[in-house]
Amino acid sequence: MIDLNSDLGESYGAFKVGNDHEVLKYISSANVACGYHAGDHNVMFETVRLAKKHGVRIGAHPGLPDLAGFGRRKMNLTSREIYHLTVYQVGALAAVCKAYNVSLSHVKPHGALYNMAAKNRDIAGAIAQAVADFDSSIVLYGLAGSELVIAGREKGLRVAEEVFADRTYQPDGTLTSRQEKNAMIHQPSEAIERVIRMVKEGIVHAVDGTDININADTICVHGDEPQALEFVASLREALINENIPIRKSWGKKR
Amino acid sequence: MIDLNSDLGESYGAFKVGNDHEVLKYISSANVACGYHAGDHNVMFETVRLAKKHGVRIGAHPGLPDLAGFGRRKMNLTSREIYHLTVYQVGALAAVCKAYNVSLSHVKPHGALYNMAAKNRDIAGAIAQAVADFDSSIVLYGLAGSELVIAGREKGLRVAEEVFADRTYQPDGTLTSRQEKNAMIHQPSEAIERVIRMVKEGIVHAVDGTDININADTICVHGDEPQALEFVASLREALINENIPIRKSWGKKR
Amino acid sequence: MIDLNSDLGESYGAFKVGNDHEVLKYISSANVACGYHAGDHNVMFETVRLAKKHGVRIGAHPGLPDLAGFGRRKMNLTSREIYHLTVYQVGALAAVCKAYNVSLSHVKPHGALYNMAAKNRDIAGAIAQAVADFDSSIVLYGLAGSELVIAGREKGLRVAEEVFADRTYQPDGTLTSRQEKNAMIHQPSEAIERVIRMVKEGIVHAVDGTDININADTICVHGDEPQALEFVASLREALINENIPIRKSWGKKR
Amino acid sequence: MIDLNSDLGESYGAFKVGNDHEVLKYISSANVACGYHAGDHNVMFETVRLAKKHGVRIGAHPGLPDLAGFGRRKMNLTSREIYHLTVYQVGALAAVCKAYNVSLSHVKPHGALYNMAAKNRDIAGAIAQAVADFDSSIVLYGLAGSELVIAGREKGLRVAEEVFADRTYQPDGTLTSRQEKNAMIHQPSEAIERVIRMVKEGIVHAVDGTDININADTICVHGDEPQALEFVASLREALINENIPIRKSWGKKR
Repeated sequence: MIDLNSDLGESYGAFKVGNDHEVLKYISSANVACGYHAGDHNVMFETVRLAKKHGVRIGAHPGLPDLAGFGRRKMNLTSREIYHLTVYQVGALAAVCKAYNVSLSHVKPHGALYNMAAKNRDIAGAIAQAVADFDSSIVLYGLAGSELVIAGREKGLRVAEEVFADRTYQPDGTLTSRQEKNAMIHQPSEAIERVIRMVKEGIVHAVDGTDININADTICVHGDEPQALEFVASLREALINENIPIRKSWGKKR
Repeated sequence: MIDLNSDLGESYGAFKVGNDHEVLKYISSANVACGYHAGDHNVMFETVRLAKKHGVRIGAHPGLPDLAGFGRRKMNLTSREIYHLTVYQVGALAAVCKAYNVSLSHVKPHGALYNMAAKNRDIAGAIAQAVADFDSSIVLYGLAGSELVIAGREKGLRVAEEVFADRTYQPDGTLTSRQEKNAMIHQPSEAIERVIRMVKEGIVHAVDGTDININADTICVHGDEPQALEFVASLREALINENIPIRKSWGKKR
Repeated sequence: MIDLNSDLGESYGAFKVGNDHEVLKYISSANVACGYHAGDHNVMFETVRLAKKHGVRIGAHPGLPDLAGFGRRKMNLTSREIYHLTVYQVGALAAVCKAYNVSLSHVKPHGALYNMAAKNRDIAGAIAQAVADFDSSIVLYGLAGSELVIAGREKGLRVAEEVFADRTYQPDGTLTSRQEKNAMIHQPSEAIERVIRMVKEGIVHAVDGTDININADTICVHGDEPQALEFVASLREALINENIPIRKSWGKKR
Repeated sequence: MIDLNSDLGESYGAFKVGNDHEVLKYISSANVACGYHAGDHNVMFETVRLAKKHGVRIGAHPGLPDLAGFGRRKMNLTSREIYHLTVYQVGALAAVCKAYNVSLSHVKPHGALYNMAAKNRDIAGAIAQAVADFDSSIVLYGLAGSELVIAGREKGLRVAEEVFADRTYQPDGTLTSRQEKNAMIHQPSEAIERVIRMVKEGIVHAVDGTDININADTICVHGDEPQALEFVASLREALINENIPIRKSWGKKR
C-alpha cells in the first residue's frame, strides 16, 4: 500500500503556480501551502475545495515565513519559533478544512523547514510537538529515516516516511545533495523501478552501489510541468500493475 | 453585568506596542491580533499565555491584511475574501489557544474591518458566517446596534454589543466620526457616568441632546498609555461600586 | 512615430510571470515593476539587463504597496503618500539603471495607481511632482487625455499619451470599464486598424459610434501569452508597413 | 575630529520606534532605514526632513529584507543578491534626499548585514561595489578594521571606521559577542573614557588586558531610551571638553 502526495496551493494572489487541477487526478494526498512561503487565504480555500472534490486527503504544508524565497532559504529560528509558526499555519489550514467539513489528515513541512527538520533534532521535535498539541490524530510526513520521523514517533504521532522517485540516496539513507551531479534520476522507467523496489522490498540502491533499507509510506510527486504530470500518471499505473494499492485512508489512530 | 474588552498582542517582531501586562489586570476579555494587521506567531503565543495567566477570556481580533496600515485603511475586498481571511485568522488563533489548553471565547474584527462590518450587510454576513462555520459557540463582538450584531444573530451566534466610553453617539446610534470636533469624551468622570447609564438604563445621550437606546454588553478599553490605564482602573472601580459585576463567563451557548 | 511599451519584470522570487525575453524583441519601451506590486531587487536587475541588451528604453513602473493584490486594488492613500511611494520606487529603479549605466527614460504608474491618476487630479499631481522632483527630464506616461497627462504638463514634464489597442473608448475619451460587455476589441485585425487610425489621424471610434480625438504617443502591449506575443509582432509589422516608425528616442527635454 | 552617528527612521506604519527628534540634537550623521528591515516611504521622508532641519548628514542604512526580524537574523543570500538589495535601498533613499535637495552622505549596513559584511569578504565586496557603482563619492561606514572597511578602500571609496562606546573588544579587534558576559561597558564614565582614548590615541583596552590599535572615525550612539539619550549628551560634551571637534563634513572625495 502506498500514498502519493504532492505540494499544492502554491499560488499567491495574481501569481499562479502549478497545475493542481490535473495532478489531483493521480494523487491520494495534497499538501496545501498555508500562506507563509506560498498560498494565501483565497488560494487555500480553492485548493481544499478542489482536493475535497477529487476525494484526496488534505494536509497542511507549513513553511518558513519567507514568500520572497518560497520557503527554500534556511533561516536561523529558535525551535520555539518553529513550534509557534507550525501551530499557526496548521491551525489556519484546519479552519479552512472545517469550513468545508473535511478533516485535516496530515502535516508535511515545506522546503527549508523540511530539510532542517530532517537533520536537526530540536526542530524536528518542535514540529512534532506542534502537531501533537494541535491534534494527535494527524499523520506527520517526513523524510524516510529522518529526525522528523523519529520525533513524530516519540510524540506518539503516526508518521509517514517519504521517499523520492527522482532522487538518489547516500549509503546512510539521506538524499544526495542537489549540488552533486548524480543527485537526480533522469530516466522515468528507472525512477519507477526504484520506487516499486522501495515499496515492495523496502530497499533502494545507494550511490555507492550498496543496497540500503528504506521505509516507503508515501511518494512525493510533482505536477507543475507536462512531463512531471506524465510521470505521475505512469508511476500510478505501474504501481497498480504491480498490485500495490494506492492508500485509501490512514485508518484510525494507533 | 458587563464585560471589559481590550485589543492586545499588537506588537510585531521587534516593534513593541501596548502595555498588555498591565491592562490584563482590569479587563475580562482580550482581543488578540492574528498576524494580518498586527501580531505575529510569537506575539500571539505570548499574549494568549499572559491572558490565560490573568484568567481573562481570549478572543480573536482578525484584521485586514495590511501591516503597514495597521488594518485601519479600508480595502475593496469581496465579501468572499472577507470570509476567507476571517476563517484563516480565527483558525490560527484557535490553534494557539489549543496549544495552551484554553478555549477561544469570542471574535471581534479590528479597525477598518470592524467599521466596514458595522455598516455593510454583506461584509457583516461574511464575518458572522466565518465564525459560525468555525465554531458556533463563539461569541461575536460588534458595534452596538450595527449590521454585524444583526448578522451574528441571523447566523445563530451569541453576540456582544460593544459600546465606547470615550466616544459620542449620533441620534441613530452610530459613533460620531473622529473627524468631527465633538467625537470624543475627554473628561474621565463624564465618560464613566455615561458608561454606567448605558449599562444600567440602556440609554446614552446623543450629540443632538436626545436620549437613545443602546445595548451595552461589553466596553472597549485601552491600556497603551498611562492615562488610559488609569481610566480603566477608575472605570472598573466605578462599575463595582455601582454593583455592576464584571462578567465572569459568557455561559453556555443559548 | 510611435512608441510600443510593455509592463515587464513582474516576477517575484520563485513566482514567474510573463515572457519578457520574447516581448523585448518587438517593443521600444519597457516599464519595469519596482518591488511594490510585483518585481523584486533581483528581478529588477535581470529585467534592466535584458532591456539594455535589446536596446529598449527603460522606465519605472511604480505601483501600490500591495503584492497580494498585484497593485490592482484601489487603496485610500493620501496624495502625500502617493508622492512618497513614487519617489521611492522611481529612485530604486533609477539606481538599478545607474548600476547598468543606462538612463531611466520614463515613468508609468501601474494598475490601480494608473487608474486613480487618470481621474484624480491630486493623485495625478502627486505622481507628476514626484517625477519632476526626481528628474525633470523623465517622460511621464499616462492615459491619453487623462488628469495624469495634464498634471505632467503642468509640472513641466514631457508626457507620452498612451492608447490601448484592445480596449474600446467612451465618447469622453475614457476607456470602457472592463465590467462592460463591449470593453474589449477581440479581433486582432480590427485592433490594428484602430491603432493605425489613432496614430495617423488622431481619431478613434467611440462606443456610441462617434469619432473622437485622441493623442497616441505610445501603445501598451502585452507579451505574457503566445497570442498576445503574436499580436505584438503583427502590430509592429503593420505599423512599419504603414510607414509609422517605431520611436528610437524621446529626444532632448523640450 | 569625530563623527557621531545614530540609526534613525526605524518606525514602520503605526509602529513607532525611537526618539529621532531628540537624538538629532547631538549627532552629526543619521543612518536612515530604507524600508527592508524597518522604515517605510513615509517614515523615510519624515526622517530626512528632520535630519536636514538639524543640519545632520544623511546616510542610507540598508538592511536584510526581514521586517519581522528587524534585519537582525542572518539570511543565506548570495553576494549577488546583497549587491542588488544594497543598490535598491541606497537608490530609494537617495531619491528621498533628492526630493529634499540634500545629498546622500554615507551608507552603513544594518544589523545582520553589517555583521556579515564585517567578516565575509564576498559580502563586504558586494556592498562596497554597490555603493561605488551608485555614487563613488559616498562614504562607507563599517566596523573598524573589518572586511567592509577593507573592501570599501579596495573599491576606491572613502570609509569611516566605526567604534562602539558601550562594547568591549577582543584582542583581534573584533567586538565581544553579546552572548558573553563581558560584552558590554555598563559604566557611562568608563565608556566615555574609552571613546576618548580610541579617538585621541587610536588605542582600546581589549578584554585580555592588552592594548590594541583601532581607528575611530565615527561612534555609534543610540537615542531610543532616556538613559541612552543622556549618555549621548554626556559623550558629546566630553568630546568637546577634550578639544575633539565633531566632524562638520567628510570633505571632498580623496
